[in-house]
Amino acid sequence: EAVDVLIPEVDNYVAYTLKTQKVLPPVQWSNLLNELNWISFVVLTLPPAVGVVGAFYVRLQWQTAVWSVAYYFLTGLGITAGYHRLWAHRAYNASLPLQYLLALLGAGSIQGSIKWWCRNHRAHHRYTDTDLDPYSAHRGFWYSHIGWMLIKHRRKPGAADVSDLRHNFVVRWQHKHYFSLILIMAFILPTLVAYLAWGDAKGGFIYAGVIRLVFVHHSTFCVNSLAHWLGETPFDDKHTSRDHLVTALLTIGEGYHNFHHQFPMDYRNAIKWYQYDPTKWTIWIMSQVGLASHLKVFPDNEVRKGQLTMELKSLRRMQEKLAWPSDSDDLPVISWESFTSQAERRPLLLISGFIHDVSNFIEEHPGGEYLLRKYVGKDATTAFFGGVYDHSNAAHNLLAMNRVGVLRGGSPHSLTDKRGVPPSQRLRV
Amino acid sequence: EAVDVLIPEVDNYVAYTLKTQKVLPPVQWSNLLNELNWISFVVLTLPPAVGVVGAFYVRLQWQTAVWSVAYYFLTGLGITAGYHRLWAHRAYNASLPLQYLLALLGAGSIQGSIKWWCRNHRAHHRYTDTDLDPYSAHRGFWYSHIGWMLIKHRRKPGAADVSDLRHNFVVRWQHKHYFSLILIMAFILPTLVAYLAWGDAKGGFIYAGVIRLVFVHHSTFCVNSLAHWLGETPFDDKHTSRDHLVTALLTIGEGYHNFHHQFPMDYRNAIKWYQYDPTKWTIWIMSQVGLASHLKVFPDNEVRKGQLTMELKSLRRMQEKLAWPSDSDDLPVISWESFTSQAERRPLLLISGFIHDVSNFIEEHPGGEYLLRKYVGKDATTAFFGGVYDHSNAAHNLLAMNRVGVLRGGSPHSLTDKRGVPPSQRLRV
Ligand code: HEM
Ligand code: HEM
Ligand SMILES: [Fe+2]
Ligand SMILES: [Fe+2]
Ligand SMILES: [Fe+2]
Ligand SMILES: [Fe+2]
Repeated sequence: EAVDVLIPEVDNYVAYTLKTQKVLPPVQWSNLLNELNWISFVVLTLPPAVGVVGAFYVRLQWQTAVWSVAYYFLTGLGITAGYHRLWAHRAYNASLPLQYLLALLGAGSIQGSIKWWCRNHRAHHRYTDTDLDPYSAHRGFWYSHIGWMLIKHRRKPGAADVSDLRHNFVVRWQHKHYFSLILIMAFILPTLVAYLAWGDAKGGFIYAGVIRLVFVHHSTFCVNSLAHWLGETPFDDKHTSRDHLVTALLTIGEGYHNFHHQFPMDYRNAIKWYQYDPTKWTIWIMSQVGLASHLKVFPDNEVRKGQLTMELKSLRRMQEKLAWPSDSDDLPVISWESFTSQAERRPLLLISGFIHDVSNFIEEHPGGEYLLRKYVGKDATTAFFGGVYDHSNAAHNLLAMNRVGVLRGGSPHSLTDKRGVPPSQRLRV
Repeated sequence: EAVDVLIPEVDNYVAYTLKTQKVLPPVQWSNLLNELNWISFVVLTLPPAVGVVGAFYVRLQWQTAVWSVAYYFLTGLGITAGYHRLWAHRAYNASLPLQYLLALLGAGSIQGSIKWWCRNHRAHHRYTDTDLDPYSAHRGFWYSHIGWMLIKHRRKPGAADVSDLRHNFVVRWQHKHYFSLILIMAFILPTLVAYLAWGDAKGGFIYAGVIRLVFVHHSTFCVNSLAHWLGETPFDDKHTSRDHLVTALLTIGEGYHNFHHQFPMDYRNAIKWYQYDPTKWTIWIMSQVGLASHLKVFPDNEVRKGQLTMELKSLRRMQEKLAWPSDSDDLPVISWESFTSQAERRPLLLISGFIHDVSNFIEEHPGGEYLLRKYVGKDATTAFFGGVYDHSNAAHNLLAMNRVGVLRGGSPHSLTDKRGVPPSQRLRV
């Protein structure tokens, strides 16, 4: 009964499907009117138009302003805490009253029924950045923001199971009464509240209804566009999803999207207390008052592994950019006699079995010229490592950069001595 | 002629000296008066006393306040840009006029002659944190701040060469006229300026002279105490020196002391433009107007190596704190028959040659229970790696935590397959 039953036995479902599935021809000026998704087109262009005109004629009262912002957050949470984290990702369990509330508020955001929304969203997670992702970020910012709704899909989103939702009574109820619910929740209720409480029906309609709706729309859309475009990838960089405070501020906390794509069933998007994730806070409060339970959290141990890998990656890039000393295999082997005779012409020092040319450095040496000259043509290992002065790790690293050879047959201080390895090479990625 | 000529041929100069050198008996109440360093004692206790009393009787005029702060910075720079970076560390070359200026301003700080100061400071760098360090941080905050000056040294600071300073004409001149110079620079000049310019001789003496002196003293002392105590160690943690903005603010930029101990001959203490290092800025301006030259900078490549090592160290600590999957050597080898028969009792999945028990996870699986059940007792490698769904790196890491065995004789997807190594184990410190 789950759609997954139908998945063929192949090596790679995405590659297979892309190859075998039929696609619609590309959209051009000639077929544009035919290929437009008219319902979405009206839902996404009429409210901004009405809002702009309405705002010209209807003065904004402060009560209506407060109510609009509040209703923006309420209906937004219907999407973020309801559609997204509860139904698409099963990140927690919600009691029946909370489910009805979220289904109603979500309807007020006019973003399709829960079932339709989650079907697309699960495909987005399952096939992120591929052509089976209905709003793949690889198709550009505007496509993932709004374009994907304005024209008919060129191909079907990849298979994603929503059988759990088909059994959910609230989801079915919302789907059935969807048209009446959006009228009531998106326009009638916000108008009525403003009218009954402070007599501003027009303002309630224009600001808390229409304009608030435009904001909620683009807030959600930013999760698909901006959150795949702006910010850092602290948990994984396989996909385009990113973490950014600005996106979080615009999306009621959905902006820690790099975390979310790695740990989609986690009820949190932000894991630090100081990060802005009001959706998480709301779910947590609901659990405290007994309306939600089983808040899922991905094991911290695995979250940290992702962070560790990403930080190691960045240190590896740094490591690759630096210049490193020559290895003993890449250096000429020099006999003791040759070393001492060459040291008469240029300042050569033997330290830990390596021969160093200190010409460039002898006048810059913080310990003075005298000490270096004294050890030219000699083994300075003991002096360098504390006999005279116990050099810093930086000095040791610098020393290794001046290697010009290795002594034949090693030296009293052999190459296998740990002191032959500069401190910067003891820890490597 | 350099003191280094006298250094004996030993394995470790510090250990050798600590063992063979005579020390004075410890200071106790009974011998305290005898062991006090009376000159320092007076220089360090009289000014605060006079300052407090003076401030009671002399009203602070705003011009005098401005002048005191300015003179604090001027005499402070005499120490930081002069005594410290120029003479102790030879971090740049100064023209003769600049040398005289710095020697005069430094005298106004009453911290001993250049020669005496640098001899101690070079020993501090050469024997940091050991008992040959005259102000070793290991002897406590107050000892390194001021205690080391109040009582006679229990043992001589370790050998440190100052032969270059003995040849410097300005240094010798300052040493010779030191007593007159401190009187003029610390008290007469600041008093005179305030008297001639706005008729406030008393204020000039108390505020720009005495109280300013107390501030300069403790500002410098903080480099020896606070900078070895407060902050981070981004370049090396072998010694106690630390970087902190607060210390930098208190010390005219000497607070990036972890950097400074690693790269003492660098004319900078702070390497980022936004860090507070007015001493560096002053030296740079002097070089721009032709009064200073040969500003030394440690090779950036080696500075970064220090940072890299420190960051790898911290990631290594993180790595060690995490739980990691069992290795194939630590797991029982299970035959195909045993695997399939055991899989009838508990949900076992074969992926990349490893057998996993998914009991804990089957109900939590974001991809649903159905898919996991379908592969119980089977090889799910292809399905896991894209046949059905191309799992995230996090999913792969989590998978490996559920290993309970390896399949005898490997599997079509052998253990040497790169997919047998979770992403979190591909990069290690
Ligand atoms: C190519 C070889 C050498 C290099 C690259 C080198 C590098 C350095 C560096 C970077 C410092 C600054 C302080 C520090 O980072 O620890 C230093 C200080 C010093 N070095 Fe060397 N050094 C070399 C060889 C030697 C040898 C052979 C001796 C002794 C025989 C020596 C004696 C000293 C002393 C005494 C200081 C302390 C200066 C002070 O803080 O007053 N160095 N060296
Ligand atoms: C112990 C073995 C498994 C573990 C630990 C595991 C783990 C996960 C995790 C953590 C996710 C969340 C998304 C992600 O991080 O990529 C996920 C999603 C998924 N898994 Fe698995 N999985 C396992 C086995 C399987 C198998 C054998 C299949 C298929 C036969 C499968 C199919 C899926 C699907 C289709 C999703 C996508 C859910 C969605 O985003 O709608 N998983 N799995
Ligand atoms: Fe996304
Ligand atoms: Fe999601
Ligand atoms: Fe220090
Ligand atoms: Fe120093």
